[in-house]
Amino acid sequence: MTCSIDLNSDLGEGYGAWKMGDDTTMLDIVSSANVACGFHAGDPLTILDTVRAAAERGVAIGAHVSYPDRVGFGRRPMDVAPAELTADVIYQIGALQGICAAAGTRVSYVKPHGALYNTIARDAKQGAAVIEAIRAIDPSLVLMGLAGAPILAQAAAAGLSTVAEAFADRAYTAGGELVSRREAGAVLHDPKLIAERMLRLATEGVIEAADGSALRLQADSICVHGDSPGAVAIAAGVRDRLRGHGVLIAPFTAGQP
Amino acid sequence: MTCSIDLNSDLGEGYGAWKMGDDTTMLDIVSSANVACGFHAGDPLTILDTVRAAAERGVAIGAHVSYPDRVGFGRRPMDVAPAELTADVIYQIGALQGICAAAGTRVSYVKPHGALYNTIARDAKQGAAVIEAIRAIDPSLVLMGLAGAPILAQAAAAGLSTVAEAFADRAYTAGGELVSRREAGAVLHDPKLIAERMLRLATEGVIEAADGSALRLQADSICVHGDSPGAVAIAAGVRDRLRGHGVLIAPFTAGQP
Amino acid sequence: MTCSIDLNSDLGEGYGAWKMGDDTTMLDIVSSANVACGFHAGDPLTILDTVRAAAERGVAIGAHVSYPDRVGFGRRPMDVAPAELTADVIYQIGALQGICAAAGTRVSYVKPHGALYNTIARDAKQGAAVIEAIRAIDPSLVLMGLAGAPILAQAAAAGLSTVAEAFADRAYTAGGELVSRREAGAVLHDPKLIAERMLRLATEGVIEAADGSALRLQADSICVHGDSPGAVAIAAGVRDRLRGHGVLIAPFTAGQP
Amino acid sequence: MTCSIDLNSDLGEGYGAWKMGDDTTMLDIVSSANVACGFHAGDPLTILDTVRAAAERGVAIGAHVSYPDRVGFGRRPMDVAPAELTADVIYQIGALQGICAAAGTRVSYVKPHGALYNTIARDAKQGAAVIEAIRAIDPSLVLMGLAGAPILAQAAAAGLSTVAEAFADRAYTAGGELVSRREAGAVLHDPKLIAERMLRLATEGVIEAADGSALRLQADSICVHGDSPGAVAIAAGVRDRLRGHGVLIAPFTAGQP
Repeated sequence: MTCSIDLNSDLGEGYGAWKMGDDTTMLDIVSSANVACGFHAGDPLTILDTVRAAAERGVAIGAHVSYPDRVGFGRRPMDVAPAELTADVIYQIGALQGICAAAGTRVSYVKPHGALYNTIARDAKQGAAVIEAIRAIDPSLVLMGLAGAPILAQAAAAGLSTVAEAFADRAYTAGGELVSRREAGAVLHDPKLIAERMLRLATEGVIEAADGSALRLQADSICVHGDSPGAVAIAAGVRDRLRGHGVLIAPFTAGQP
Repeated sequence: MTCSIDLNSDLGEGYGAWKMGDDTTMLDIVSSANVACGFHAGDPLTILDTVRAAAERGVAIGAHVSYPDRVGFGRRPMDVAPAELTADVIYQIGALQGICAAAGTRVSYVKPHGALYNTIARDAKQGAAVIEAIRAIDPSLVLMGLAGAPILAQAAAAGLSTVAEAFADRAYTAGGELVSRREAGAVLHDPKLIAERMLRLATEGVIEAADGSALRLQADSICVHGDSPGAVAIAAGVRDRLRGHGVLIAPFTAGQP
Repeated sequence: MTCSIDLNSDLGEGYGAWKMGDDTTMLDIVSSANVACGFHAGDPLTILDTVRAAAERGVAIGAHVSYPDRVGFGRRPMDVAPAELTADVIYQIGALQGICAAAGTRVSYVKPHGALYNTIARDAKQGAAVIEAIRAIDPSLVLMGLAGAPILAQAAAAGLSTVAEAFADRAYTAGGELVSRREAGAVLHDPKLIAERMLRLATEGVIEAADGSALRLQADSICVHGDSPGAVAIAAGVRDRLRGHGVLIAPFTAGQP
Repeated sequence: MTCSIDLNSDLGEGYGAWKMGDDTTMLDIVSSANVACGFHAGDPLTILDTVRAAAERGVAIGAHVSYPDRVGFGRRPMDVAPAELTADVIYQIGALQGICAAAGTRVSYVKPHGALYNTIARDAKQGAAVIEAIRAIDPSLVLMGLAGAPILAQAAAAGLSTVAEAFADRAYTAGGELVSRREAGAVLHDPKLIAERMLRLATEGVIEAADGSALRLQADSICVHGDSPGAVAIAAGVRDRLRGHGVLIAPFTAGQP
């Protein structure tokens, strides 16, 4: 038996003269790249360069769509009307599809970014707007979302394929939610501990919750960050621990609706 | 024998709360819509609504790509590096393709807007960057350009299909260039005269130049404007005069490279 | 005894090639101009032209500050961190002050726009961020807000002068709140009725609420709109009815803290 | 006798989540900070933080005004109409003045950025638009420009105070112009050599040109960069060499018109 799991990371998040993260190094670690589409980050040339580098390495490409809020990096909740949100998401996916076509590759999935990601995890109205966008432009695109969040069932009910992800460096409540960043211990920093947790998640489908209980979590992708040297080390540590245990790092195969 | 000619117009040029022109009326007149792609005008929802209205009427859709200059409406020459320009054009075409896919239609051609249009007419370096973008994303897209301008031959030599357009409301020099807007008489206002000129162009391939000479001009599309009631009246007048003479208004068939 | 009241309107809301409203006509009607500062509308040249036209007519100038959301015209609630909001408001006021200095006039007051206006009416946290901005850049600037809303007391407690405004074309609840736009009858359209209501407000400090009761409302300014011919007619009707009754239209005198 | 010279650097060039350069370190080296005003870089909060840090250290503040081209970092020539350019510059200076007022300091000078800097050095039309902006908002603001460039005389003739600057890390032609970046040797990298050149410039008013000749150059400010560790080392080297020789680093005193 071969086990495999997907590692994904946010990439292409520079903007013009501004750089962010070490995309080249991360592309050698992950199997899926969430590529910025211009609304929170990513100018066309940066996106094109990122997509080319991903394609060269066989890394799968996802559209990292966002609210239109560049100065806020897409991190601020916005009360966008559903019709506007649907059009915004279509536009961003299309732009990335065009750039992928030019680079000889394609968009495989959609992962909302930042505040949009958090909002649609539970807000069915904005969630429906994102689902509608994907269905309209290409219903074969997979929606990536937070393992356990209602958005995944909502998308599946609407006929979309979905993939659930876990966060390598985040603590979970016993109920399966992320511990709020406002609480101590919400973000983990120890590369070794993180690698162990992700190995257990990949092999047993279990992660230790903040209260010490064993939380069952179905995740086919693990999100790692690359925006600091420490983050890159954590990502590499997860990869190495998984590989060392015979777990393949490979793009996810989407759950069918 | 049936004669036909294309009428094209710039549409989808609103932005959020701001409107521009009377798109619905113009879509009942023209056969091709140059749809803004977000860089000089056009937010995603405005673009989507425009594309849907065009599709309903069987109007062909072109990507009206621009420099990234919303406050200047894409009218200001910018010294953009070729690699940036290529990526900018790919991004815009892709975004419009995505919106067209969502609306059940497709992009047929690319018409650069404003300062980019004027610059590439003769600047082979920026022209090559635009050609490269089209070839990279979809070499079957047709490039629309100024009848007689070097860009059309440049694009054809690079393997692209092209279509030449004439401007309904502009005077021409005997040499086939547009009379500069800084000179008196550069822009025509008489709907009847304009309609007559376009009929002659469509049927004989001839337009009277500013010095009274007969200018041979090969054009398969005529650009009309819709940004004022007077402009709409001119556009309708051209259509009516052509139809009255048995000339069909229909999307162009591109010249093969 | 002379009675006077202020009429204010949102102006300078064009952006580049896009126009909005009939600023020149409105400047002949109102005594205070809420001038866009570039974040929801208003490019520098449009702002400068508006400020010059206001100064020529002795119309007082207010900074119509907004969330940074041009495509949404500042109408979408955004969860902006207080420090960011404070800096955003300072930046916008400063920009308008600079343009006023260039036009030989000055900013007299600050009126938040759209979603920011509605949010700070009751959200003390974002309200405090706006108050902090005004205190930091120039504590003599007056804050204009919704008559009866908590923000006015909050600002006064922080040492700012304030002015309360009523909306000419809106229905009020018996409790003094605006009837939600989602309810029928929230927006009034009859110019004659509106003019009567504003006359009574100006002379008696009373407005008829939606349930027919007499609502006491202390307002030193009345907001009128200019974004349609109908709106301009309403504004002119209010002015004419007030003047006909001997009420002067003049910039407000701020209530001292 | 005490000699002093000004060291200036571009600061506040982050944007939202994106950082650029090491502003804190540079503020401990320079005597004047060219602070981004939001058009090529600098969001309001970044600008406010930069201005506060400069004020704490007694560093003079200049408005680093730019074309409106964030994705191009203001480095791309744009054919902006004079009235638009004037309004853009007024807006940016005003915004920075507002932020300086909030931080208890003030704007002392204006240094155009990037492509605007290079263009107005010799283009009298755009130069006049910038000069007009400064005269309109505050004629006591000093214009900083390239030593020897026509813009300085143009500004002085228009009644502005000016200050001429030299570039620490650039080679000069015998005629006093910067060697084009397209030529080998245009940019200097050796900290020790650069420090020697700047010492000679400060004490003798002479710099060795690319052909070995001694070029007389009147400069009251030296521009140093801080966008890389190497750049910071060069800046610190210049400061230390000058100080070691008894030359004070202090904000310039502007040449009167």
